[in-house]
Amino acid sequence: MRVGVYGLGRFGAFWARCLTGRYEVLAYSRNEQRETPEGVQRAEEGDVLACNAVFLCVAISAMEEVVSRIAPAVRDGATVFDTCSVKVHPIAVMDKFLPRGVHIIGTHPMFGPDSGKNGIEGLPLAYCPVRSSKENREFWLGEFRNMGLRVLSLDPEEHDREAAYTQGVTHFMGRVLNDMELKPSAIATKGYEKLLEIIEQTCNDPYQLFIDLQRYNPYTIQMRERLGLSLKKVQDQLLDTTSGEI
Amino acid sequence: MRVGVYGLGRFGAFWARCLTGRYEVLAYSRNEQRETPEGVQRAEEGDVLACNAVFLCVAISAMEEVVSRIAPAVRDGATVFDTCSVKVHPIAVMDKFLPRGVHIIGTHPMFGPDSGKNGIEGLPLAYCPVRSSKENREFWLGEFRNMGLRVLSLDPEEHDREAAYTQGVTHFMGRVLNDMELKPSAIATKGYEKLLEIIEQTCNDPYQLFIDLQRYNPYTIQMRERLGLSLKKVQDQLLDTTSGEI
Repeated sequence: MRVGVYGLGRFGAFWARCLTGRYEVLAYSRNEQRETPEGVQRAEEGDVLACNAVFLCVAISAMEEVVSRIAPAVRDGATVFDTCSVKVHPIAVMDKFLPRGVHIIGTHPMFGPDSGKNGIEGLPLAYCPVRSSKENREFWLGEFRNMGLRVLSLDPEEHDREAAYTQGVTHFMGRVLNDMELKPSAIATKGYEKLLEIIEQTCNDPYQLFIDLQRYNPYTIQMRERLGLSLKKVQDQLLDTTSGEI
Repeated sequence: MRVGVYGLGRFGAFWARCLTGRYEVLAYSRNEQRETPEGVQRAEEGDVLACNAVFLCVAISAMEEVVSRIAPAVRDGATVFDTCSVKVHPIAVMDKFLPRGVHIIGTHPMFGPDSGKNGIEGLPLAYCPVRSSKENREFWLGEFRNMGLRVLSLDPEEHDREAAYTQGVTHFMGRVLNDMELKPSAIATKGYEKLLEIIEQTCNDPYQLFIDLQRYNPYTIQMRERLGLSLKKVQDQLLDTTSGEI
């Protein structure tokens, strides 16, 4: 089968490479400077959009502009997937602009080139079929499972609520700790080494992903408020006194 | 050689067990409920203080009370070690109260029962000899190296400055994230799993250790202020807009 990958940014290039194991992969990027991943065929925009399955690998904040523009070029009966780190917003956009005859499946591969560098076997993919025949929905569920992924069906709201307090808080803390300019140290504890790994992994991702992940997930506001309250509470605890053995 | 361990809290019990590999270990706890670690001999306070080497494993905030009280019972020519997570304060206390004829060596084993559960080989120990003959100082440096530890000689100020931005920030964030009641999740990313590990590892340690580590290290105020500023800065960045490929 031939699948199209639209966008060859850091994640798009990685995802295109993951797909080459099972499909003939055509990829398009508006940016000619982007490298073509091994095993992937570089193609014109129209050719990628004419595929039976099209994976959109564009920034969350670019979804509306991209989907509204490409909608007329998508073939009747094709399946369009987004791969965004939030689900409510991109699904609403696809549902609004894509023609009736197009199947829509929201996905969030919960990994990237860093966490998936040793293979994607066993890693989670959030799966949100929106507008799709039962047959098509089950077909793609099976395909992702055959790629070795741990497929999790959940609704977009549920995904965003949960992601705010998992991926959202991790990326937020990664950026905050990175801003503190923490450095490797000879007296690093194991815990501190893990903290540095979190910074590295989150800050390797594009800055735009971080911003979009926070801004387009309606639950991250609550998460950041909660973080602020917890910080204040722990600060206040330092004003008390006691003593004992360690 | 016979060594004494004063205090059998979570860290003291662990450290006493580490020492049994090379020494006859006598241990005292004012708390009779504490279990005696395997290979360790439970003893009276006076017997532990009569050892040639005494490791104090008491809370940072208890150092002044304990050291001032036990000082007369320490033998002339003995070596007293603290094992606190800060160095300036406990070293000043030992220097103030212990008799002239007593050697003083500040240490900070930068691990505990969690990070050292698979052995302490290669883990760091900060080493701050204060009042000690060259011979004694070099003897103990060799002993710790023979235990497999990575011994790092540094002065107490230097230790506290560095520890505030390594162990200090890790424990602070661990407590804050714990207060947020983050839970394991089916859609956990690798980064989020590391975040949960940090919470577990830091919050397994006694609450008192956390409080003391922040309160008795003069550099953690600055660290927490810096953390607050970085948090504010990242929050503010979320107000900007751009877009692109992911």
